[in-house]
Amino acid sequence: MAPSPSSATSVSPVSVIRSAVDGELTAFCTTHRARLLEIGAELAPAMDALEAMLSGGKRLRPTFCYWGWRGAGGAGDDGRIVRAAASLEFLQACALIHDDVIDRSDTRRGLPATHKRLAALHAEHGWSGDSEGFGQGAAILIGDICLAWSDEMYQASGFALETLQAGRPPFDAMRTEVMAGQYLDTLEQVRGTSTREAALRVMRYKSAKYTIERPLHLGAALAGRLDALEGVYTDYGLPLGVAFQLRDDVLGVFGDPGTTGKPAGDDLREGKRTLVVAETLARAGKADADRFRTLLGTPDLSAESVEWMCALITDSGALKACEAVIEEYAGQAMDALESPGLDAAAREPLRRLVVAATSRTH
Amino acid sequence: MAPSPSSATSVSPVSVIRSAVDGELTAFCTTHRARLLEIGAELAPAMDALEAMLSGGKRLRPTFCYWGWRGAGGAGDDGRIVRAAASLEFLQACALIHDDVIDRSDTRRGLPATHKRLAALHAEHGWSGDSEGFGQGAAILIGDICLAWSDEMYQASGFALETLQAGRPPFDAMRTEVMAGQYLDTLEQVRGTSTREAALRVMRYKSAKYTIERPLHLGAALAGRLDALEGVYTDYGLPLGVAFQLRDDVLGVFGDPGTTGKPAGDDLREGKRTLVVAETLARAGKADADRFRTLLGTPDLSAESVEWMCALITDSGALKACEAVIEEYAGQAMDALESPGLDAAAREPLRRLVVAATSRTH
Repeated sequence: MAPSPSSATSVSPVSVIRSAVDGELTAFCTTHRARLLEIGAELAPAMDALEAMLSGGKRLRPTFCYWGWRGAGGAGDDGRIVRAAASLEFLQACALIHDDVIDRSDTRRGLPATHKRLAALHAEHGWSGDSEGFGQGAAILIGDICLAWSDEMYQASGFALETLQAGRPPFDAMRTEVMAGQYLDTLEQVRGTSTREAALRVMRYKSAKYTIERPLHLGAALAGRLDALEGVYTDYGLPLGVAFQLRDDVLGVFGDPGTTGKPAGDDLREGKRTLVVAETLARAGKADADRFRTLLGTPDLSAESVEWMCALITDSGALKACEAVIEEYAGQAMDALESPGLDAAAREPLRRLVVAATSRTH
Repeated sequence: MAPSPSSATSVSPVSVIRSAVDGELTAFCTTHRARLLEIGAELAPAMDALEAMLSGGKRLRPTFCYWGWRGAGGAGDDGRIVRAAASLEFLQACALIHDDVIDRSDTRRGLPATHKRLAALHAEHGWSGDSEGFGQGAAILIGDICLAWSDEMYQASGFALETLQAGRPPFDAMRTEVMAGQYLDTLEQVRGTSTREAALRVMRYKSAKYTIERPLHLGAALAGRLDALEGVYTDYGLPLGVAFQLRDDVLGVFGDPGTTGKPAGDDLREGKRTLVVAETLARAGKADADRFRTLLGTPDLSAESVEWMCALITDSGALKACEAVIEEYAGQAMDALESPGLDAAAREPLRRLVVAATSRTH
């Protein structure tokens, strides 16, 4: 299941770990499906939905956890780090399943969101009551199971108990921070806060720490070198995480639905208070800003309105400003990799991850 | 913080541990509130809601965990078992907060449910969008934080890492089983299943294993004696758990709202597929059963209809049958305590817990 050490230089930093992570997740799900079905055969559709959510995704958190380990001198062909890293995918599955319920999102990666999938099961069988309500309830529970299994898989990864305990501070911080960040995100949306500071704080907790910094810290801690590398990984992870999220936000406005799986303008329809929005409102004239603010968060936003908003984002200089932030932060992340404390094996892959996260088109 | 060993015989088996558990939860919340507020001061109302949910409740799971430990020879004045036992209250807080979202319950223990509390915060501030939706989203996230903190508190209880690992199988099983049991419960409600078998299965996972058997197993495992006591605690916990839930179900139909905090007939309005319902439908004539089935789950059920349904439950013999099951199962639980493997210190408290759980009026 573990990736071979030699493959690190020949393939992308994500694909070196991807199939190993997938394999461990499949193995875990096989034993846990059996346990669930022992409780009740009717749990099969819930398990199907859980596995469907788990089977997609970029494996970003496991990837950063793995390279955090390698950068701390951890061996490339160690199945334990693959399992510990893979456990983060269960946390991510919980976050996504619950996010979709909270945001009432219909789709995820071009497929029906978990709660929509379960609502469809309800409708198909003609069960009593409200299909949407059943779907949401079921999705909350499936997300809860994912959250519990994340920790179960981590604890069963095969590391010595002392090593697992050393990894607990970043592991625990990650869980609290992503939930707290999501709460703040929801709050900023309803408060209509559109300041740069608010947008940056949400990005910091919901994305930068959760997706990059903490997984790197976890990898370093499992290799017994968190003290030495904590600062390096923070200097790399926080700017890269913000740059990564900002790329995501730009794609969420302008992106091609063919590659992102989301229709263009989707984030504008949802009313997300991103830095793109904050920069636009800060730079546009009052009349334009007022109109933009009014349109933002309108669920049935017309194609014309989306086009007008995209034009304002571009013409106001907000897009350019965001691209400049992405470039600057990507540069800061690159600089952090110069630290002599970092194992040379991880330097090039972590560099390539900067490029991949900030230049991607989907 | 730990209860004194001598108090075990003089006070109730719940109160011997209660204040110690409360103290540990308060201490944990103090440090974790500080961490949350560091992320954002606006998280204060979320933390308030979390603590409000945590401050109520009967502390049943910690109590059974503690007596499971004592029955396995664990010392009475050990702060580690108090902290490990208290961590189960965070799991319970998650289960209740999410349950209330799933069931759209407005109240919990006579106070506003967490999602209603957060919805009120939204309305109070006149934030944009739907107050109910905000409240539900916030409650999902607060429940998630509770689930993560349960495991964090368990892992930080102070036991040796090998001991904590020995407790993992019951700890992990408990989390999966309660979520799976809740899923099945939701499913039975929409499918309109009203068989004894279905009702008993939900009680087994959602109540018996979760509230009694697994906490006892956890206590035994932490004392290093799960192998010796697993069977005894199962023989005690499963029948007692079903009897306990059945008492709850009877109270949910007939109970005095002054003592239960729930209006009489509440479970009938919610359409809960309890054994009380299954027994009634199995015993009543066809016309009465049809009418009962039609009324069940009507949110605005009139006082007259509740009265008629209660009369049918009584007249059909269903109530008597349920009381007979409670008595029989309570007897089975009592019998299990005769096992010579059980430490004498726990025998009388565990006996008193049978009486308290099955004869209570609230």
